[in-house]
Amino acid sequence: MIKTSGKQTIMVQGFKFAGISAGIKKTGGKDLALIYSERPAVTAGLFTTNRIKAAPVKLAVEGIASQKGQAIIINSGNANACTGRQGTADAKEMKTRTAKALGISPELVYVSSTGIIGKPLPVEKIRNALPGLIGALSPTSLTQAASAILTTDTFTKTVSKKIKIGSKTGIIAGIAKGAGMICPNMATMLCFLVTDISTNKKALDSALRKAVNKSFNRLAIDNDMSTNDTVMIMANGLLENSPITKNSPYYEKFENALSDVTYTLSEMIAEDGEGATKIIQIVVKGAGTESDAEKVAKAISNSMLVKTAIYGNDPNWGRIMAAIGYSGIEVNEQKLDIYFNKIKLVSKGVGTGKDKSVRNTLSNKKTIITVNLGTGNKSAGSLTCDLTEEYIKINAHYGT
Amino acid sequence: MIKTSGKQTIMVQGFKFAGISAGIKKTGGKDLALIYSERPAVTAGLFTTNRIKAAPVKLAVEGIASQKGQAIIINSGNANACTGRQGTADAKEMKTRTAKALGISPELVYVSSTGIIGKPLPVEKIRNALPGLIGALSPTSLTQAASAILTTDTFTKTVSKKIKIGSKTGIIAGIAKGAGMICPNMATMLCFLVTDISTNKKALDSALRKAVNKSFNRLAIDNDMSTNDTVMIMANGLLENSPITKNSPYYEKFENALSDVTYTLSEMIAEDGEGATKIIQIVVKGAGTESDAEKVAKAISNSMLVKTAIYGNDPNWGRIMAAIGYSGIEVNEQKLDIYFNKIKLVSKGVGTGKDKSVRNTLSNKKTIITVNLGTGNKSAGSLTCDLTEEYIKINAHYGT
Repeated sequence: MIKTSGKQTIMVQGFKFAGISAGIKKTGGKDLALIYSERPAVTAGLFTTNRIKAAPVKLAVEGIASQKGQAIIINSGNANACTGRQGTADAKEMKTRTAKALGISPELVYVSSTGIIGKPLPVEKIRNALPGLIGALSPTSLTQAASAILTTDTFTKTVSKKIKIGSKTGIIAGIAKGAGMICPNMATMLCFLVTDISTNKKALDSALRKAVNKSFNRLAIDNDMSTNDTVMIMANGLLENSPITKNSPYYEKFENALSDVTYTLSEMIAEDGEGATKIIQIVVKGAGTESDAEKVAKAISNSMLVKTAIYGNDPNWGRIMAAIGYSGIEVNEQKLDIYFNKIKLVSKGVGTGKDKSVRNTLSNKKTIITVNLGTGNKSAGSLTCDLTEEYIKINAHYGT
Repeated sequence: MIKTSGKQTIMVQGFKFAGISAGIKKTGGKDLALIYSERPAVTAGLFTTNRIKAAPVKLAVEGIASQKGQAIIINSGNANACTGRQGTADAKEMKTRTAKALGISPELVYVSSTGIIGKPLPVEKIRNALPGLIGALSPTSLTQAASAILTTDTFTKTVSKKIKIGSKTGIIAGIAKGAGMICPNMATMLCFLVTDISTNKKALDSALRKAVNKSFNRLAIDNDMSTNDTVMIMANGLLENSPITKNSPYYEKFENALSDVTYTLSEMIAEDGEGATKIIQIVVKGAGTESDAEKVAKAISNSMLVKTAIYGNDPNWGRIMAAIGYSGIEVNEQKLDIYFNKIKLVSKGVGTGKDKSVRNTLSNKKTIITVNLGTGNKSAGSLTCDLTEEYIKINAHYGT
């Protein structure tokens, strides 16, 4: 796995990328990205579950039914959400103009937007920037695209992983943006993945759903869910392996590799959570059902009090107990064990007094909180970051 | 209604109060309170829905079945939660010793604790302080009791309201503590109410439930729910009115007065939310059902992004739209109107551009956000406070 913030060049045969500045962001930073496949690719996508969807997301939800795609154009700086009829018209114009400029059918183009909600998309800036964007397309420019989709993120997020499919070696590469407004159901999180591995539609869709469930859907920065979340993958098949189906021997390998890529991207998003200084990984074991384990993991990773405690290097296991208690599952307090960084802090529902030794480990970049519910053998995890004054500063003053 | 932070003396016939320092709080502040009725009172109580309940809460849940009570002893500084068998023994000892010292049956005594979770209750300090506590009992000491139940609160919260029942004038008085860890289902929130009005058990229980639903259950400071939440009321009947029943002509008047008292206390709690600089009131109208309106109101008042925006005087209605969208109800974006302090910011799902005039109003102590869903005629409200750097500071370093 190659995890990079821009130092290595990732290439995936048949794909070209571009990231330029179109003047949408006030800062003048890169704000327009394009991902283009030489030939139409099998495509899958998952989108926000928010009932209020941004205009481009509505279009993409319609378009993805075909499971075909060849280009994704993404702008940052403006979410084109809550923009009414004009927003829909703007997203459509962005789509058709991109198709025309690339000389492909509009059905093969997806549009994605991220940034401020409720302001008209400056579509003329995108229109004017299109020739330059297409001119910048290059097989080596994944990082440029990755940096053009960022908003309050502090570093670009690209990941790639090679997999052997028979005698051939394919690659999955992905870029993501996150930072704020992330919640366990994928919120203002964008992730675009490309691969040269050949798969059929059903296998690609299924593998993407699994990967997202194991990664982005378990990620919590704050508890807000955005109108724009998108995860998409294009598989152009240029590896010319025998196409992966759900029954193919390589399906599981492909699915696992894809999950690895999305998990690594979700870790990078947690690391870059607004104002975050630490990653917090939650592992819940010993649950009666996986759904119970998930509820507990999410309750803990959504707790502002847990997140501020970790920020303050405070092994405050009482807040973990409280979160378990309100997670909605039946709990047997007398069977609960809690570990912070593998040190047992709570045994059978009562503190062990090892707070001091735990405290020493909490200044690390990553904290692992393990809960054993003691009532079964199912488990689940989640990922979050600490909550700091910086988060407040960013979110009190970002926006209008 | 008299709302006071200690300047007025509230008296309720037949009740005595005390608040002293027992040395539980490291600061040396008041940390032990007693509320005592001359004669056994009809009593009702509501307790945390957290599955992990503090030891005294478990006892109170058992005890309240009788709906009788005469004394409530409350300590702050230690929650006696997650303290295992020792915790239960300590809560029982606190109960029986108080009963013995007052010369009443233990069944008439309730114990309540708030503060740090997971540390053994320093029960010997309470034992030693009991004679002094009882010696301090006085009809004029409600404020002393109110200040002894506080933790990170910055001011005491007492409210009283007089009501005419026929030719007689009764009074309902209450004290509360809140500050942090408050969520829409009543979390580390303590509230103790007393009245001289005579009611039967059923009427008192029913009125308390209604009052709590309209006040504390709609309050959100953070989204965490504590192990210790308690709301209790004792009605000693010394007014000697004909006892209020659910069918009595005065029932509704009594219920409304009680709701007024708890709502005012919940406003005071919001005002004193950890690090808060502003109260935010959410009003949701035009919903198909009251439950839909409630879900939207809670989603908005739980949103960290909404709370930080108000802190930053930012009329960021996009965050309101996002919260409505993920609240779980069906939403018709094109019917949505949003007002900030009565200025229409969103009309039929699209911004009106009045952000600047709204911004000028956001420096006020209270912001009212009104949402009209445009799909029915049901409504609901919620109450919260802004989220500031100070909240983070308090919660990163409070605790162990």
